[in-house]
Amino acid sequence: MTERPADQPEEAAVTPLEVAAHMRSVNPMMQDWGMEILEVTPGYARLAMTVRPDMSNTFGTCHGGITFAFADMCLGIAANSYNVCSVTASSDVQFLAPIPFGTRVIGLATQTWRGPRNGFYDARVENGEGAPFILVRARFRIIGGPVVPARGG
Amino acid sequence: MTERPADQPEEAAVTPLEVAAHMRSVNPMMQDWGMEILEVTPGYARLAMTVRPDMSNTFGTCHGGITFAFADMCLGIAANSYNVCSVTASSDVQFLAPIPFGTRVIGLATQTWRGPRNGFYDARVENGEGAPFILVRARFRIIGGPVVPARGG
Amino acid sequence: MTERPADQPEEAAVTPLEVAAHMRSVNPMMQDWGMEILEVTPGYARLAMTVRPDMSNTFGTCHGGITFAFADMCLGIAANSYNVCSVTASSDVQFLAPIPFGTRVIGLATQTWRGPRNGFYDARVENGEGAPFILVRARFRIIGGPVVPARGG
Amino acid sequence: MTERPADQPEEAAVTPLEVAAHMRSVNPMMQDWGMEILEVTPGYARLAMTVRPDMSNTFGTCHGGITFAFADMCLGIAANSYNVCSVTASSDVQFLAPIPFGTRVIGLATQTWRGPRNGFYDARVENGEGAPFILVRARFRIIGGPVVPARGG
Repeated sequence: MTERPADQPEEAAVTPLEVAAHMRSVNPMMQDWGMEILEVTPGYARLAMTVRPDMSNTFGTCHGGITFAFADMCLGIAANSYNVCSVTASSDVQFLAPIPFGTRVIGLATQTWRGPRNGFYDARVENGEGAPFILVRARFRIIGGPVVPARGG
Repeated sequence: MTERPADQPEEAAVTPLEVAAHMRSVNPMMQDWGMEILEVTPGYARLAMTVRPDMSNTFGTCHGGITFAFADMCLGIAANSYNVCSVTASSDVQFLAPIPFGTRVIGLATQTWRGPRNGFYDARVENGEGAPFILVRARFRIIGGPVVPARGG
Repeated sequence: MTERPADQPEEAAVTPLEVAAHMRSVNPMMQDWGMEILEVTPGYARLAMTVRPDMSNTFGTCHGGITFAFADMCLGIAANSYNVCSVTASSDVQFLAPIPFGTRVIGLATQTWRGPRNGFYDARVENGEGAPFILVRARFRIIGGPVVPARGG
Repeated sequence: MTERPADQPEEAAVTPLEVAAHMRSVNPMMQDWGMEILEVTPGYARLAMTVRPDMSNTFGTCHGGITFAFADMCLGIAANSYNVCSVTASSDVQFLAPIPFGTRVIGLATQTWRGPRNGFYDARVENGEGAPFILVRARFRIIGGPVVPARGG
């Protein structure tokens, strides 16, 4: 492994996209629901998913619990993109519009503020034209330790 | 159908438990995840579910999105118990502790306040000893119309 | 000072009402706005305040910021009732109805769950007949140390 | 008054800054606490205020209720900048750090999404170097009607 300055954490050797790929491999939900990772950079994630009839709520549209879980996955990938373990501590969720079956939703998560113990991340799930379905603001607690062990040599 | 006073809505002929059973029949998530309906009364619901490895998050415990979806289902059953269609408009979610695989979680939803257009409901998901895993406060928008059509004759 | 068992914190010698009275003495807002302490027990507080024209918002009713501040004060007194310093970390606030000038509002704060590092408290501000104006759910971070030093000898 | 197209609301003749100035004139809180209006554009507001000892909480820093009220005022000015009456319906508040007396805080409110009935606005209150003290996400209900009557003639 290449020598790195002391102040740069070893886990930095793992890229945001590698962390996301690892997360996809261990989250059955991401595979079962067909979540696609479109883009991951430090503190940012963009995913896609197509809403299916087996995700139905009582009223024949996408279940809010599933929409939230998709947004939470986007947020989790953004929050863990530094390869430092972070878990959702709280979420404020606003449901704006129902999502019809067959819709390919895009989930975008961005970092609002990150301190030593907590990080705040915002997500929106929207359709292809940018019309939002839900907005989520989440606090992540930074628990530390790498998500993916650094490649050693 | 029996004559009823004008001020009593027709949908009152359907019991809270019948509404919940209907909701279970049309929500694939409730069946796929093995949610059990333990008790439903007006404005109140108690459900159970056992956490499985295929509900895993990145850290080997129950995915927060799935825990939320379970709580949201409890809230939805409580909010729709009057057989008047109500949908989640917003949620405040507090994650208190991780849930190990194999845990049989209990979800309790109660009504805090119900006005003409909005209802507020609180849920907690806990283990068998009453230790909470998450707390949710939700606003439901009352959109009207019956969840289950009244039995005619 | 009387000898007490080792496992009983020294600050327990100070009652919830004494903590509340101390808080009133150091919070100018409580005095300026005429907040009355009606009842304080461990994890619980009930206060009153009369809404004045100098608390106006743009629309000629009580400013939401002032209503929140009153609710937050109720929550703070409930959260600090054990005489262990606790500060508001987050709040979910739902505004249900405007408050006319001259209304004597009652604020009730109760404890939902208290762990070693965080406590969750719910407040409602209502009129004399129990009709709610706002609902608040707050997380308090328990920072430790006494609010009021124990009476020594 | 100049003729305007039918699809342009009459209240558009009033600028965001004029709406904000009107709001300041009818909100005693803005005057009593010395809030300065720095900048207002459609869906955006930036205000300043200096924290004083009479704004104290129990712990000798700015009371969270007062910090929230300041943030809510920034949000209200951003939400009403179109000169269409809008009131706070709910808020998610995250307190990040205590504010010492004497701090000149800056409050920034921006629009996240605005639909026909609701608008979502985010605020942050920070010090001169951009370090945030609190984050607020608010839903405003658009109740309609002008905040300031259009100048007729």
